[in-house]
Amino acid sequence: MLSEAASAIGIEVCVLAERRDDAATSVAGEVLYGSGFDAAALSALARSCDVVTLDHELVDLDALAELAAAGVAVRPGPAALLYAVDKAEQRRHLAAAGIAVPEFIVLEGEVDADVALVVSFAAELGAVPVAKAARGGYDGRGVEAGDLSAVLAATRAWRAAGTRVVAERRVGFRRELAALVARRPGGESVAWRTVETTQVDGMCREVAVPGGVDDATSLAGAQLAVRLAELLGVVGVLAVELFDTDDGLLVNEVAMRPHNSGHWTIEGAVTSQFENHLRAVCDLPLGATDGPAGAVATVNVLGGGDPLARDALASVLGVEGAHLHWYGKAHRPGRKLGHVTVVGVEPAEVAERAWRAAAALGTPRRRDEGGAQ
Amino acid sequence: MLSEAASAIGIEVCVLAERRDDAATSVAGEVLYGSGFDAAALSALARSCDVVTLDHELVDLDALAELAAAGVAVRPGPAALLYAVDKAEQRRHLAAAGIAVPEFIVLEGEVDADVALVVSFAAELGAVPVAKAARGGYDGRGVEAGDLSAVLAATRAWRAAGTRVVAERRVGFRRELAALVARRPGGESVAWRTVETTQVDGMCREVAVPGGVDDATSLAGAQLAVRLAELLGVVGVLAVELFDTDDGLLVNEVAMRPHNSGHWTIEGAVTSQFENHLRAVCDLPLGATDGPAGAVATVNVLGGGDPLARDALASVLGVEGAHLHWYGKAHRPGRKLGHVTVVGVEPAEVAERAWRAAAALGTPRRRDEGGAQ
Repeated sequence: MLSEAASAIGIEVCVLAERRDDAATSVAGEVLYGSGFDAAALSALARSCDVVTLDHELVDLDALAELAAAGVAVRPGPAALLYAVDKAEQRRHLAAAGIAVPEFIVLEGEVDADVALVVSFAAELGAVPVAKAARGGYDGRGVEAGDLSAVLAATRAWRAAGTRVVAERRVGFRRELAALVARRPGGESVAWRTVETTQVDGMCREVAVPGGVDDATSLAGAQLAVRLAELLGVVGVLAVELFDTDDGLLVNEVAMRPHNSGHWTIEGAVTSQFENHLRAVCDLPLGATDGPAGAVATVNVLGGGDPLARDALASVLGVEGAHLHWYGKAHRPGRKLGHVTVVGVEPAEVAERAWRAAAALGTPRRRDEGGAQ
Repeated sequence: MLSEAASAIGIEVCVLAERRDDAATSVAGEVLYGSGFDAAALSALARSCDVVTLDHELVDLDALAELAAAGVAVRPGPAALLYAVDKAEQRRHLAAAGIAVPEFIVLEGEVDADVALVVSFAAELGAVPVAKAARGGYDGRGVEAGDLSAVLAATRAWRAAGTRVVAERRVGFRRELAALVARRPGGESVAWRTVETTQVDGMCREVAVPGGVDDATSLAGAQLAVRLAELLGVVGVLAVELFDTDDGLLVNEVAMRPHNSGHWTIEGAVTSQFENHLRAVCDLPLGATDGPAGAVATVNVLGGGDPLARDALASVLGVEGAHLHWYGKAHRPGRKLGHVTVVGVEPAEVAERAWRAAAALGTPRRRDEGGAQ
């Protein structure tokens, strides 16, 4: 989606990909093959580009820091990326700056002592906390939200593997929100409307705009995202996942790249998150973020039992106003393979159409979830 | 733009390109190098694809006919393409079907006799006709609309080169319009809103939606385009350039591909002409064509004196709501290098912004033209 946006505005893209069937290879002008953890591959990429940016967090911060030290424009920079890559660093940095986050402890000592710390933290909270691996998690992986024994077992396993762990209170929330901002090197930033997300088992299933987000909450989310972008020194897009609680907004996660919660901006806003990410990292004027005029629903397409068949494509395109974005990734049950966006007037109607289109591609139907993480 | 749309919905594109710097090569998953007039290159393309389609008319109809005869899905088919490639065939076919076209004669005899025929046609009209090479014209090339001696000289030169010529009445029109339709193999078709175009020296400079096109005229244009698509057996997008005259709509030109007059659909309609062209040639359900809610202006970016500089990109992206589409073509003064679309409420306001953005890229400013071809 970044490459599609780059193509339109005449920015040439060189992709560093691990495999020939990586989705991004099919729309990039130039493709280099190699690992983002290989300093030589990163150097080759840097020589091909004016600006290096990223679309995931599984990166080698040290190698990026070396590039940046050598004068390569790495945006966002490694100092900012640390807070997206490492939940322990992020929680500490945000808490120190007075940003509301769930109560947490960081586990980075001896395995047995850390497990004992989780037990006493649970006693202190009067509830079982959730455990998160500080690095490497994605779409619910790296998070253990089961009962106490499961949380202790995960903590033990991660700590034994040398991974720091964050244990934190499960927040009772009214809804989950996501705020989105793009920021240029000089600090100019623009925010989109704050949206409502529906997460199931740690994976985003649906984004509703405006969803249950009133204008005041939307503005509060946007202001918080702008403040975080400034605090963390982000260049590019910053997505902030939020808990909307009786006590206000709490930061759940941050991502420094175009984010699933912002895919609605392709059809629903004047400028998409992808184009503004490119504008921001290239230090070009940011585009207007107005929109949507009505309601937007974006539903993720998850791999079902069967791979995509041609008939399925016909079915999804047969849903009125369904905008399909297919990522070209290999099929695997439960994997995010794409998304569908519908723009319209009636929220229930656009959601129904988006879910119907996603279901035509094998996505399991929505199940209603209670208001707890 | 076709490749960008294909990428989104998961259709894989293989491009047959003549040169490594052809714009389409940078966003296609697979690129074959060769000429569209080389049967071997076309066969190689056909072996790589389920469907062969085209984005210009400079094609070898005989070679395409051979592919089609061998069972390759060439869409639109060669029988339809003939009417887009050859103005003489098109004028005769439309006139025979009772479609309103300007009064015309086809010149295909001896050179001196043909020149004499133009002289008597001019006498009959009481006006100097315009002369058009039946094949190979584009953006005003292949058209002579000067005084009688220029028209006769062009006729003589084209006939001497073996090119058939169409001489036709210069139509006095209120405005120039363009109608746009997409049609599937089975006949299902959808039409977009008919738009107003501004042509200068035979080249489209601006598209305004709705422009001066009222709902009744828009509907008449759409119905005419649907009828033409059926009559000509088009699969894919058909763009019909029209003269809006005191006597109704006259067909000026037809194109069987996504067309400059339909670029506004990327931002201004639910489904773009590019996506619906792909859907149509792949025999998938067509997308909704609703829109725009307000006003849209698309202005072509023409090469000015200087090639695009980075500052120019910053300037154009600094115009509020300006959507740039940059084609990645080599710079040449007067060449179409891209376009800018602005969507908004006030027609004068969106046009001003689109022209300002195009001017930032070196496009000569609009000059007002009278109501004659």
